[in-house]
Amino acid sequence: MSRRIKLVVEYDGTLFSGFQCQGKGERTVQSTLETALSEIAGHDVSVIAAGRTDAGVHAVGQVVHFDLEGRIPTERIARAVNGRLPMDLSVAGALEVGNDFHARFSAKRRSYVYFLWRGAERSALYGRYAWHKTGELDLIEMRKASRALVGSRDFAAFANAGGDPGSTTVRDLKRLDVASIKSGKFVVIRVTANAFLRSMVRNLVGCLVCVGRNEIAADDCSTILASCNRESNPCRTAPASGLCLWRVDY
Amino acid sequence: MSRRIKLVVEYDGTLFSGFQCQGKGERTVQSTLETALSEIAGHDVSVIAAGRTDAGVHAVGQVVHFDLEGRIPTERIARAVNGRLPMDLSVAGALEVGNDFHARFSAKRRSYVYFLWRGAERSALYGRYAWHKTGELDLIEMRKASRALVGSRDFAAFANAGGDPGSTTVRDLKRLDVASIKSGKFVVIRVTANAFLRSMVRNLVGCLVCVGRNEIAADDCSTILASCNRESNPCRTAPASGLCLWRVDY
Repeated sequence: MSRRIKLVVEYDGTLFSGFQCQGKGERTVQSTLETALSEIAGHDVSVIAAGRTDAGVHAVGQVVHFDLEGRIPTERIARAVNGRLPMDLSVAGALEVGNDFHARFSAKRRSYVYFLWRGAERSALYGRYAWHKTGELDLIEMRKASRALVGSRDFAAFANAGGDPGSTTVRDLKRLDVASIKSGKFVVIRVTANAFLRSMVRNLVGCLVCVGRNEIAADDCSTILASCNRESNPCRTAPASGLCLWRVDY
Repeated sequence: MSRRIKLVVEYDGTLFSGFQCQGKGERTVQSTLETALSEIAGHDVSVIAAGRTDAGVHAVGQVVHFDLEGRIPTERIARAVNGRLPMDLSVAGALEVGNDFHARFSAKRRSYVYFLWRGAERSALYGRYAWHKTGELDLIEMRKASRALVGSRDFAAFANAGGDPGSTTVRDLKRLDVASIKSGKFVVIRVTANAFLRSMVRNLVGCLVCVGRNEIAADDCSTILASCNRESNPCRTAPASGLCLWRVDY
């Protein structure tokens, strides 16, 4: 009789080639986690994640599930697996869940946070977790643009190639807000949706930054959205290092 | 005619063997910075720092000075040197100062911040910058102990071997406070003094943690202090990773 276990997982994405295996020999969160879990379980373990984060993206609240045959008590799993994981990957907690729980398909909302570092010079400490963006950023226009993007819409214009082919590109964007924190040293963009397309958060951030820098108007976002075509979106994808998977709600 | 330049320097100390060269072939902040500065100056540059931080200690507000012969405008130094430094070391700003300015001897106050991570499990993200300390920590007793330590006193009992021999071990500890932040996820210890002995901040933190865990009483700190002897101090030195040189005032 196997138990289904839900884990909350944290990682510093800097040295990972993303969550999921793309090719042989890559250091991924999935393979590193599966190796450690297999050791404590005594059998091969496969994990399924709520969000398949890109290379370089961080997480404080990634959620995965797996099925465990071994007898290790649930409350000891986190400590045991943390002893076998490298410093840049850790399990914050483990919980036994019903066999119908699915980290990906049961998730109702995913929330990401994107950090922009606003200092005049690049930062040795914050640069690891934030996009260094100097110059003017018109937060009022960025907020206007974000309001135009919220809702249940087809976000194909904000999806990079490589997602699941043939499936819907409609997502319900529930929150997209822009805040200045720490006396303007950082701009923080918080995003929540039922689910995201490939690199969608980074494309939303890239678009908001284009608006903030007056390269496009806030109203242009509706036109880009309506195109349903990434090629019609002139804004670059924001770099992975500024992005962090914050939490997943079920 | 040379100009004296003051730099504010940031680093993630994880992969540095401290600020200053201890032996050959070590990766130090000083040697990395001097190599980059010598390139932009066109001559050999030596830097002098406000605080010679230990291996693994971070900085957001380290200050160094050096003498520059070259013609590069002061306002371009930070950008130029940042282009030559590795990602975990950066210059936040550069300022021309008088030739009597000395990063170490002119400094009036150094402030450090020490982070304790209070989560049940180690953290892949915060573990790089905080000491993971689970279990009870009596903040009220820690604050009582910190009040007993503040003032101009002989801190020899809080100094590890390897400081300047023969010089005074009296320091003026102006601030030592203990705060719980982010709903208790972190305990933050802020320390300010005119100057510090070797590993003194980490020994103060180690002592406060001993008090917080009820291994010694708050009153014992006065006895330890009066001993003027590191051997009479039963508390371990707190790990370097939790420590960050926050600012230096002149």
